[in-house]
Amino acid sequence: MIDQNTQRAEAHSFDEAMALQPQGSGRWQGLAHPGYQNMVGPFGGITAAQALKAVLLHPDRLGEPVSLTVNFAAAIDPALPFTIQAVPVRTNRSTQHWTLSMVQRDAMGEEPIVLTGTAVTAKRRTTWSAVDAVMPPVPAPQTLPRVPVVSHLEWLKRYDFRLCAGSLPVHWDDAEADSLTQLWMRDDPPRPIDFCSLTACADAFFPRVWLRRARMTPAGTVSMTVYIHVGTAELEASGTRYLLGQARAQSYFNGYFDQSAQLWNETGHLLATTHQIVYFKE
Amino acid sequence: MIDQNTQRAEAHSFDEAMALQPQGSGRWQGLAHPGYQNMVGPFGGITAAQALKAVLLHPDRLGEPVSLTVNFAAAIDPALPFTIQAVPVRTNRSTQHWTLSMVQRDAMGEEPIVLTGTAVTAKRRTTWSAVDAVMPPVPAPQTLPRVPVVSHLEWLKRYDFRLCAGSLPVHWDDAEADSLTQLWMRDDPPRPIDFCSLTACADAFFPRVWLRRARMTPAGTVSMTVYIHVGTAELEASGTRYLLGQARAQSYFNGYFDQSAQLWNETGHLLATTHQIVYFKE
Repeated sequence: MIDQNTQRAEAHSFDEAMALQPQGSGRWQGLAHPGYQNMVGPFGGITAAQALKAVLLHPDRLGEPVSLTVNFAAAIDPALPFTIQAVPVRTNRSTQHWTLSMVQRDAMGEEPIVLTGTAVTAKRRTTWSAVDAVMPPVPAPQTLPRVPVVSHLEWLKRYDFRLCAGSLPVHWDDAEADSLTQLWMRDDPPRPIDFCSLTACADAFFPRVWLRRARMTPAGTVSMTVYIHVGTAELEASGTRYLLGQARAQSYFNGYFDQSAQLWNETGHLLATTHQIVYFKE
Repeated sequence: MIDQNTQRAEAHSFDEAMALQPQGSGRWQGLAHPGYQNMVGPFGGITAAQALKAVLLHPDRLGEPVSLTVNFAAAIDPALPFTIQAVPVRTNRSTQHWTLSMVQRDAMGEEPIVLTGTAVTAKRRTTWSAVDAVMPPVPAPQTLPRVPVVSHLEWLKRYDFRLCAGSLPVHWDDAEADSLTQLWMRDDPPRPIDFCSLTACADAFFPRVWLRRARMTPAGTVSMTVYIHVGTAELEASGTRYLLGQARAQSYFNGYFDQSAQLWNETGHLLATTHQIVYFKE
């Protein structure tokens, strides 16, 4: 465990990525973090986390996040700052509805949209609670080898992955298989999990179509939704320990497949369920 | 099958509900249809379908719907018209990103938000396709009795439901159970399925928490996402036949539970997968 009271010499790269600059009126400026660079633009999970961060930073926010949907409308240029606008468009007694957009000003002074989204925050009350999606029986993360990063993709180096089932194919031989992956994950270096890093983890699975087909076709998330099933107290209890992620696809049809996933903490609390629809080329 | 070339004496109530009036600039006016009235305001599925209809009606639309997220921000007043705004905020070569909002002008002339949303439409190309979420073995709808409508809720009368598993509890005795429901559904009278009616069906399941707990607690959908895994051709092939819906919950935590569901046509094609997060009182 990291002692949070210790002054650390270096900021965590995740915290650097979440450091948005207030521009007033619910607008924040940020920049893609080089440590989370993906194939084209930044890792989508970090972008989704930045969008949620804008909601969490908003002075008018009511409660904690319950639901987040982000739509990746265009590749984010890592060389240009972006502006996130978070607007609390409707505030009820216990829920608040947000719209989100991210733009990048280009050389022409235009501000094309690169992300759209919505979020719901809520003041939760203590109610009857239960987890129906029980954590599958898997080996403890400490007993599993860390997945070596053989890729040049920077963002993969920011995570410690321990695979239980459903690795990337060893042979890309078009041998069709199941789309299920189960893997432990945590930030590297370890960092206490929070709503933003949980959101990033929701996008940490490689494209299901690669596993399903043993074929590496270009793929990219179009829309991702995260439902959060914890409050701050339960997140804090998760500390810097691993999350177990489980992901599978249900349909692949003419260029788009879906992915449904769960994220549990080590004690088996279901922290989040998440869904996405992903473009694939062929 | 209904012969679509036959002039019908009466419009289908679903088509009446989808009859939005163009107001220009991507704005449409509509009204909650009395035939789809739910406990408080209209059935959420019909509202989601109306939001999608605004996208489909838009003259600048590219392709067919792939993803829709709607957030129910407030109860819709069935006595007042509403205005839906659909904006194509980003159009790429093969995908288009939409923002959606619905407002109702009140007596003070204010226009509070009652719904937010986003959608993605896309020009699909023919690719390798597969269904991983295989339709479960269930009896054919014709062999099952129609679920009698014992409720006063109007919208239930607009559907023909045939239950395979997971009915509403007979005894509301707090006997905890599984949250799985499988049921056949179609419009009554039968109507060829389209993107809007498919979207409505995605919200046709009663709240999972009622089944799970055998306790009728107030509940209402906060956010719903629908991923569409068919094009117009596959929908037309589904005709007026039944859809099999399967729904279950994964987590119930301090006032909110999730629901994940699938909708197959009678031949086992997975037409849509859908997810929602739902408020429950206790």
